[in-house]
Formats: sequence, structure tokens, C-alpha cells
Amino acid sequence: MPKQSESLQKLYVQQLQDIWSAESQILEALPKMTEQTKHAELKRAFQQHYQQTEQQVQRLEKIFEDLGETPGGTTCKGMEGLIKEGNEAMKEFKDSDVLDAALIAAAQAVEHYEIARYGCARTYAHLLGLSEHAAILQRTLDEEGDTDHKLTELAEQVVNVDALK
Amino acid sequence: MPKQSESLQKLYVQQLQDIWSAESQILEALPKMTEQTKHAELKRAFQQHYQQTEQQVQRLEKIFEDLGETPGGTTCKGMEGLIKEGNEAMKEFKDSDVLDAALIAAAQAVEHYEIARYGCARTYAHLLGLSEHAAILQRTLDEEGDTDHKLTELAEQVVNVDALK
Repeated sequence: MPKQSESLQKLYVQQLQDIWSAESQILEALPKMTEQTKHAELKRAFQQHYQQTEQQVQRLEKIFEDLGETPGGTTCKGMEGLIKEGNEAMKEFKDSDVLDAALIAAAQAVEHYEIARYGCARTYAHLLGLSEHAAILQRTLDEEGDTDHKLTELAEQVVNVDALK
Repeated sequence: MPKQSESLQKLYVQQLQDIWSAESQILEALPKMTEQTKHAELKRAFQQHYQQTEQQVQRLEKIFEDLGETPGGTTCKGMEGLIKEGNEAMKEFKDSDVLDAALIAAAQAVEHYEIARYGCARTYAHLLGLSEHAAILQRTLDEEGDTDHKLTELAEQVVNVDALK
């Protein structure tokens, strides 16, 4: 394998390890967020995203297997920071009537982190000629984008606009 | 002011404080990233983003002034985690021929964090009837989106595709 290809593959695997750790942290954090929300549609969106995340993890594990690598061993510090921040917001707005909006803000920060990471991993897969990986990662990337848009729509719904007047 | 409006305004200000702290951390981190990159166009993109960030901070300060609030006093833990992660990647790929690609990955995680936060703040401003704020925040949001797209394009350029074959 040419030298730069080796380096890029190393970066690719590092990025995948980071995402795998991030997804694992999300699977831990999401049930708590789901439990706290009062808005039925937001609760459903979180539950659906949990199931989607499980599938995304399986896709990542398929890629690891294909690369002859094993996931784990690193902790994604970016996601750690985002979840810490989300927990603080949940605490601060616990009894507030904008708790659902605060939960959405936390979830969107998480979504965008994933969009950035999957986007890079997809580009590396493409450059490495791993077109099957690139397609799998693009599928997850599209799902993350859809979730983000749905959350933006919900942000306008969970706030009772009439109560603002 | 109705109760929910008060709560939403509190969430809005908290979001703005978070962004202000994030932007301040970016202004500290960007010069180091700019220094490390070898790719002329990427260097220019980072330099341009530094100037843009300074303007974005000024816009935020205008909004704080308008709200009768003062920025500062909180540290954005999300950005702290992202920068920590970026520093680790810079260290790990310091002598690698994919350092520029690793720098872009770090920058895109930062960009997407900002996209998530500015998106929420813009939505809150809109719901609160603060249309001037919403327009200012949308302007920054568009700039962050453009930077992200430019970085995706550059990611394909900084890797010497011929060397991969």
C-alpha cells in the first residue's frame, strides 16, 4: 500500500473509532433524554433515533470487520463534552417550560457532531476507493441530516407560541 | 412578559453565552491550526475564518447589548471537548502526510457545533419575535455553512490522490 494511502487509512480508522465511541455514548444518554421530554412527538423522535443509532452502530461494526479492525479502546472526548453540556442544560431547565427546547438543542449539537464525523469518514472512504464503505456511511449521514431537520421543525412546535404573546 | 417567554429568553441568553464562549475558544485555537497546515489554500481558508469569527463575535456582542446582557462567565464545555480532541489529532498526525486532512476534520467538528448552536439561537430569536436578531444569527449561520462546504471540498484536495494509487 502506498505511504499516503497507509496514513489516510490510519486517519480513517481513527475517525471510525471516534464515531463508534460517540454512538456508544449516545446510546447511553438518549434514554434519559427520552424520559425527560413531555412532548409526545419529541419522545417518539428520540425513541426512533435510538433504534436508528443501534443500526448505525451495526453498520460501523460491519466496516470494522471488513477492515480487520476491532472497535473500542478510545473515548470520544468531543461527545463527552457535548453530553456533559447536555446534562447541565437538563439540570438547569429541569422544571422549566422550555425543557423540551433545551433537550432539542442538546440533541442537535450531538447530531451535528455526527454529521461532521460521518462526512469526513465518507470522504476518506471515497478517496481510499472503498466505495461500499462510502455508501454505507452516506446512508447514515443522510439519516443524521433528516433527524436534524426534524428536530428543527419540532423546536418550533414544542414551544407553545400562544403562551409567548 | 408571559412566563414561557421569560423561560425561552433565558434559554436564548444561555445559548448565546455558550456560543460566545465557543467563539472565544475558536479564536484561541485557530492560529495554531493555521500555523500547522502546509496547504496554501487551507491556510487561507483558516485565516479567512479567523477574520469571519471576529466579526461573528462582534455581532453576538451587539445582540448582548441589545438584550442588556454581558457576555462571559461561562465556559462552553462542548467546544472544550472538541478542541481537546483536535489537539490530540494534531499531535497524533503531526508528522503524517494526512495532517491537513486531520486539521480539516477538527475544523469541521467545530463548524458543525456552531451550526447547531446558531441554528437553535436563530429559532429562539424568531419565536421571541426578535426578527433583527434572527436575521443577524442567520447571516452567521450561512457563513458557517459556507465554511463547512469549502472544507469538504478542500478535504478532497489536500490529500494527494495520485499518491494513493
